[in-house]
Amino acid sequence: MNDQRRHPSEFDLIENIFAPLAKSYAGAANLKDDCAILSVSSGYEPLYTMDTLVEGVHFFGDDPPNLIAKKLLRVSLSDIASSGGVPKAYLLALSLPTTVSYEWLKVFAAGLTGDQKFYNVVLLGGDTTSTRGPLTLTLTAIGEVLEGKTVRRSGALIGDDIYVTGTIGDAAIALRLRDEIGAESLREQYPKLYERYLLPQPRVELGYLLVGLATACVDISDGFHADLKHICDASSVGAKVLKANIPVSSLAKKVLTRQNKYWDSVFGGGDDYELLFTSSPENKEKIKKIAKESGVFVSKVGCTVAGSKVSIFEPNGDLARITNSGWTHF
Amino acid sequence: MNDQRRHPSEFDLIENIFAPLAKSYAGAANLKDDCAILSVSSGYEPLYTMDTLVEGVHFFGDDPPNLIAKKLLRVSLSDIASSGGVPKAYLLALSLPTTVSYEWLKVFAAGLTGDQKFYNVVLLGGDTTSTRGPLTLTLTAIGEVLEGKTVRRSGALIGDDIYVTGTIGDAAIALRLRDEIGAESLREQYPKLYERYLLPQPRVELGYLLVGLATACVDISDGFHADLKHICDASSVGAKVLKANIPVSSLAKKVLTRQNKYWDSVFGGGDDYELLFTSSPENKEKIKKIAKESGVFVSKVGCTVAGSKVSIFEPNGDLARITNSGWTHF
Repeated sequence: MNDQRRHPSEFDLIENIFAPLAKSYAGAANLKDDCAILSVSSGYEPLYTMDTLVEGVHFFGDDPPNLIAKKLLRVSLSDIASSGGVPKAYLLALSLPTTVSYEWLKVFAAGLTGDQKFYNVVLLGGDTTSTRGPLTLTLTAIGEVLEGKTVRRSGALIGDDIYVTGTIGDAAIALRLRDEIGAESLREQYPKLYERYLLPQPRVELGYLLVGLATACVDISDGFHADLKHICDASSVGAKVLKANIPVSSLAKKVLTRQNKYWDSVFGGGDDYELLFTSSPENKEKIKKIAKESGVFVSKVGCTVAGSKVSIFEPNGDLARITNSGWTHF
Repeated sequence: MNDQRRHPSEFDLIENIFAPLAKSYAGAANLKDDCAILSVSSGYEPLYTMDTLVEGVHFFGDDPPNLIAKKLLRVSLSDIASSGGVPKAYLLALSLPTTVSYEWLKVFAAGLTGDQKFYNVVLLGGDTTSTRGPLTLTLTAIGEVLEGKTVRRSGALIGDDIYVTGTIGDAAIALRLRDEIGAESLREQYPKLYERYLLPQPRVELGYLLVGLATACVDISDGFHADLKHICDASSVGAKVLKANIPVSSLAKKVLTRQNKYWDSVFGGGDDYELLFTSSPENKEKIKKIAKESGVFVSKVGCTVAGSKVSIFEPNGDLARITNSGWTHF
């Protein structure tokens, strides 16, 4: 659709597409004022994170618009989860090429409507602009965390256990399969992997419950190895991980059994948005309990050690060879 | 510079260009964590605004990078000012084409460094991505406002005085002259107009002092007429303005005397980032006093009336003909 005249006006967009996402919260002033307000619960402090998704870099132009919207929001909610926060609201900036239709935006907004209910967040404000470049989406998420209790990357201590949630590598394996066999075949043959890459499941409830238990936490967006290294660097520790303990899905296991090279996607692929955290061994039972409470599968994969290296061991005791140590953003 | 290899890495960018802008504030965690925290002063609540500037739409690629940075920040600070807030911090998302060099980014960051000191704000976090499109800059500004005291567009009452700060139309006249005579000639012949278009002066101090005095406030970003209409629509009032009372700079006056059509830029041109506000006539002296205190020129241009129309009158009592009623974003 290259007809410039069919590009909706900013007024129309705000009035009909985005204001309904803000109407439940008076502080958003129906997106009609210069600023939004959002008060903070007593005993909490605000948390902020901002992410941009660019068409052709972070998503494909033909991905379903409702899922692009959900991914955009969930990527930031995952950051709030990894910091121990409760998500509250978000601001949204869209730079729209003329190829984006009104219908596309309606489906995009419908994706947000669903996730707003699910995660109990509201649209506070934002901006829409035109662009002659690719569709560019930036979201600022606002959460709140118990005062002074933010879970940082820097708190891991030597001797902590290392845990991950869910299964690792699915999103990156899906993306790689998409390159090899195309989106259609991926969706048909591996629907669950396809969904993992399109639709992250931020561990919001568990993240909040980890406050006071996790010494450090990160969400896996750059890759298991790279994000574990981020914790190690920030905390001045090293890490030992048993490859056999890294949880992989049964579908991923099938692919890995056929093609060993896909392990690179487990170690180095981004976009899992699982939590990777450290905790004292004495919290083992408590972590089991909150994992059960929040319905999230949690696996112990290793422990922190003195030093600065991340070492992953094969079942025979050899060091695993890591050829892909993480996603870089350029 | 189309050499992809010279595009700086995200790590390098954060470490050397952006982390120094965040180092004075521990809650930003040196831009190395998933979220930033920023506590709120007792008795205040947080205020948020988000704006995107796209190369070729909101600025020219050859505008000085330090001034692009300052404009990006100031546009949002102006929103905080118009809401009666005190600016505190900001998050920044950059989508960078490979044509943006490391040197360009250093000058961009230098612009932010200067404004951070001037406005007492700090970089909290953000994101950098690559793009095959134009340079796209999104900023979320965070301020705080006395609890329950946010100045909204919707509070104007019939019989209020209407005021503006500074002079109106300079930025739009500059932009139009730039089209006619080119950037070089504009800079040489009208340096002060050129500066007005490149570098807004958000009325941060005055905005805060207007809390409790202004019944409604907006910053002029869409145009004098359009933004006054925003207040009228939100407040269910009309407005009468005397054209002769609209403050124009001596340089703008020169242009207007030569070419009457430029009045369109005074009525309808955006980008002034002056405050347009309403207040009860009984506050006249107080407003004079705070204008003096904050060193900002404030002019009474008219008053609010029953109805919904914005009427601007010529000195002879005729209605001024408005052919350009405001900036639309597409």
